[in-house]
Amino acid sequence: MTSPTCPLCAEAGGELIWQSALYRVVLVNEAGYPGFCRVILNQHQAEMTELSPEERSGLMNAVWAVEEVLRAELKPHKINLASLGNVVPHLHWHIIPRWQDDPHFPAPIWATPVRESASRITDLNWLKAALASKLLMLESFAKE
Amino acid sequence: MTSPTCPLCAEAGGELIWQSALYRVVLVNEAGYPGFCRVILNQHQAEMTELSPEERSGLMNAVWAVEEVLRAELKPHKINLASLGNVVPHLHWHIIPRWQDDPHFPAPIWATPVRESASRITDLNWLKAALASKLLMLESFAKE
Repeated sequence: MTSPTCPLCAEAGGELIWQSALYRVVLVNEAGYPGFCRVILNQHQAEMTELSPEERSGLMNAVWAVEEVLRAELKPHKINLASLGNVVPHLHWHIIPRWQDDPHFPAPIWATPVRESASRITDLNWLKAALASKLLMLESFAKE
Repeated sequence: MTSPTCPLCAEAGGELIWQSALYRVVLVNEAGYPGFCRVILNQHQAEMTELSPEERSGLMNAVWAVEEVLRAELKPHKINLASLGNVVPHLHWHIIPRWQDDPHFPAPIWATPVRESASRITDLNWLKAALASKLLMLESFAKE
């Protein structure tokens, strides 16, 4: 199921890191938030409770896998998780590593920024490889 | 496990609607957002990936149950889900019914408001009963 006007039906929605039959994982390019990822459902559905329990678990297992990798590789102060979709009602989860010196901390990233974007150098190639490896393991495990 | 300085270890964190061994569900009193609920883990843990898979599923099943009731009873334009915890790092999920004339739509509720709070009359007693009934069913089902 796709929607002709939906940007997440038309495009990946970020740099593609991993794709399964159910979802894809993309890296979001946002200043101050290296490692910000989205787990995007492939089909066009707006709400988690429109999915079957199996689809819900499959999608959330990807969210937990991404969170686990971001915590292990980036050691952020906190992880923020959100599924909003007011503008683009196509299920997508934000997995956002937060640091105490990031542009909005402790406010959510959608609030007014309180400081300049901290320069935070992160080897994103290493992170991408770690994410892909974890998501491959998750998929192999789910197929057993 | 509790933290001596954590407000969600010391207090319910809203009007208590339902409590299980793992979590509680509270109604949040926020202008413009009738039916805004939180599912709060009882123990003091910061991140979803600190929980066991069973605890994660148990907590998320409560989030889906609340979402289902809010959608059925309030028919909002969209549901927003978020677990942030930058200020209070004790796991709590926001389940927020959104309407196109609410104070922030289509922005997240943490952005600058764009209009006066819409007056929206909702029978919260009926909603509380529907939530408690659904969560009781969920718990009975989990024990089978």
